[in-house]
Amino acid sequence: MNEPHSASPSAISKGRLEFLYDGIFAIAMTILVLELKVPELVDSLSVAELERALGHHAPTFASYLLSFLMLGILWTRHNHDYRHFRVITQPMLIITMVQLAAAAFFPFCAALLGRYPRNTFSFVPYAGCVLVLVLCRLANWVVARRCGSLTEFPEPDYLRIRKRILRGCLALSAIFALSLLRVFAR
Amino acid sequence: MNEPHSASPSAISKGRLEFLYDGIFAIAMTILVLELKVPELVDSLSVAELERALGHHAPTFASYLLSFLMLGILWTRHNHDYRHFRVITQPMLIITMVQLAAAAFFPFCAALLGRYPRNTFSFVPYAGCVLVLVLCRLANWVVARRCGSLTEFPEPDYLRIRKRILRGCLALSAIFALSLLRVFAR
Amino acid sequence: MNEPHSASPSAISKGRLEFLYDGIFAIAMTILVLELKVPELVDSLSVAELERALGHHAPTFASYLLSFLMLGILWTRHNHDYRHFRVITQPMLIITMVQLAAAAFFPFCAALLGRYPRNTFSFVPYAGCVLVLVLCRLANWVVARRCGSLTEFPEPDYLRIRKRILRGCLALSAIFALSLLRVFAR
Amino acid sequence: MNEPHSASPSAISKGRLEFLYDGIFAIAMTILVLELKVPELVDSLSVAELERALGHHAPTFASYLLSFLMLGILWTRHNHDYRHFRVITQPMLIITMVQLAAAAFFPFCAALLGRYPRNTFSFVPYAGCVLVLVLCRLANWVVARRCGSLTEFPEPDYLRIRKRILRGCLALSAIFALSLLRVFAR
Repeated sequence: MNEPHSASPSAISKGRLEFLYDGIFAIAMTILVLELKVPELVDSLSVAELERALGHHAPTFASYLLSFLMLGILWTRHNHDYRHFRVITQPMLIITMVQLAAAAFFPFCAALLGRYPRNTFSFVPYAGCVLVLVLCRLANWVVARRCGSLTEFPEPDYLRIRKRILRGCLALSAIFALSLLRVFAR
Repeated sequence: MNEPHSASPSAISKGRLEFLYDGIFAIAMTILVLELKVPELVDSLSVAELERALGHHAPTFASYLLSFLMLGILWTRHNHDYRHFRVITQPMLIITMVQLAAAAFFPFCAALLGRYPRNTFSFVPYAGCVLVLVLCRLANWVVARRCGSLTEFPEPDYLRIRKRILRGCLALSAIFALSLLRVFAR
Repeated sequence: MNEPHSASPSAISKGRLEFLYDGIFAIAMTILVLELKVPELVDSLSVAELERALGHHAPTFASYLLSFLMLGILWTRHNHDYRHFRVITQPMLIITMVQLAAAAFFPFCAALLGRYPRNTFSFVPYAGCVLVLVLCRLANWVVARRCGSLTEFPEPDYLRIRKRILRGCLALSAIFALSLLRVFAR
Repeated sequence: MNEPHSASPSAISKGRLEFLYDGIFAIAMTILVLELKVPELVDSLSVAELERALGHHAPTFASYLLSFLMLGILWTRHNHDYRHFRVITQPMLIITMVQLAAAAFFPFCAALLGRYPRNTFSFVPYAGCVLVLVLCRLANWVVARRCGSLTEFPEPDYLRIRKRILRGCLALSAIFALSLLRVFAR
């Protein structure tokens, strides 16, 4: 088990970084819905027209649910991770900020996918954003291990978690590469 | 009184789930107002025109107040519930996430109802969303009881609360069924 | 000094109500800025046109600053008040929810005032909303006193605070009445 | 080391001011993305058109990243600062409120810069807003020192921090002055 770097024992108050994290995730998850626009009807009393208009937006609703699920899972995982991180060092803070930038950017990707579900390009930023989020999670674990933030955490457990995240990263990288291929190999 | 499952003693930090919950409810309650648009006036100095324009949006204002009330009551109830839940197990986390997805989706339903108050279809997603929110509350109590999160909570109190929520679910199911009937039994 | 009602010793966790309060105020204060729209320029390189367009929106900027100040002061006052409230009883919870509904509604009033600063009607909802916010503050103190939430708080201090808020309510009522008069006494 | 002013020992609960701060920063950082609009395509399946449309918005994306970075750094610095402030006095509260108003205003500046990156005027409010944010940070330190909020904080450390922030303020003032010069010295 490494010793914590004495130079960077606590780059930030862990509690307040968690507040910022929870805040940005809560807002990103709620902002997803802002992309769902109330349709403009010609006949405001027509049930059939409203049904048709909402049915037309079905991909946006599906993208909303998928994206909420994604952010929910990521937030849950992050919550698990942070229980084990004793301190947040400078590199971990930077990684978390990159992750937060990707999370705040996610509603745009979700809106793009929901608006053009059959355009092969619209999946590229979406897959890329999820990939960045998961890569940051992996980086956070590796860096936390290196700088000694994971005291008292058994080596086998660390290796198991790292392997699982690594597998997720590989799967997402493959999905991202495929989405790029679909665009450029027309 | 059941024993907590040793396999899932604490799926998540209860405090941080409450932060996310409070955050998403606070945002959903505030985003409701984004649907209230400042009207475009032909004569920007005309009091009569502004009064007329705002009067025209009266259903949207009514929908805003009703929806704020709904979310406020739900948030208060949730607050009560969580005092009694000792730990948040994996199934309870999933149920809470479904509830949060419905809460974040609620401003869209409120906007739809406020925009087309006399269209019989616009009440369907609204009633459906409230039903999901209350069903999740019921599920949370039942699951909390089953997985032993409710230690030291007297059985009669549990039965009384469950009965009350169940009654609410039945009333909301009836309202939802009626709203569907109004649409399809034209 | 009254004794707390045994029937309603703590309607809600004070800490979580404060989270919701802080969340809704933070969002309302930030949402104010959403009304500031980036102007559409004919010549995107023209400095003069951009200056003119932003200058045209000066009332909106002034309304933004005034409204941020209002919410900031109210939030600060609320913070002071809540230090002295030992428990939050059911009536206090309801009053706080009304206050939060008014706070979440405030960005709409600010946008209306900023958009039509010279329309005499646009000041009516703005003044009304501030009046509701301050009346709720007064009600919270009176109710807190009545239901025994203010233990150990000296009577003279309570009377002094109540008098000060009452004075504010009277001033705001006068402003509100004047704004109504300006509209109807054309 | 100065003694705290007995007249203003704690103008506000430090914890709740931090909540408001974290909330407003989280929202401002997430609202930045609302300016990124999903483009309207003529042919919704055309990859080339979507690529072109997104490429056209490249400055907006760059402005998003830059602004997220700015707010992230400021939030981190603020977090450091607040560890050392024992109490928040009335002047510090006012300074923090000005800083929050600037932070909430920042997404508008970012949107303006992203929309008209080559208009020399669009950089003026952006640079001005960052300058206000950093000046408030400087003011907070100086005032904290004066009113005795910095007990047990060594004088050399205080002088070093003040010097560093002062240098940042000078650099930002120069940038702001240059941006003004570029506009008026056409």
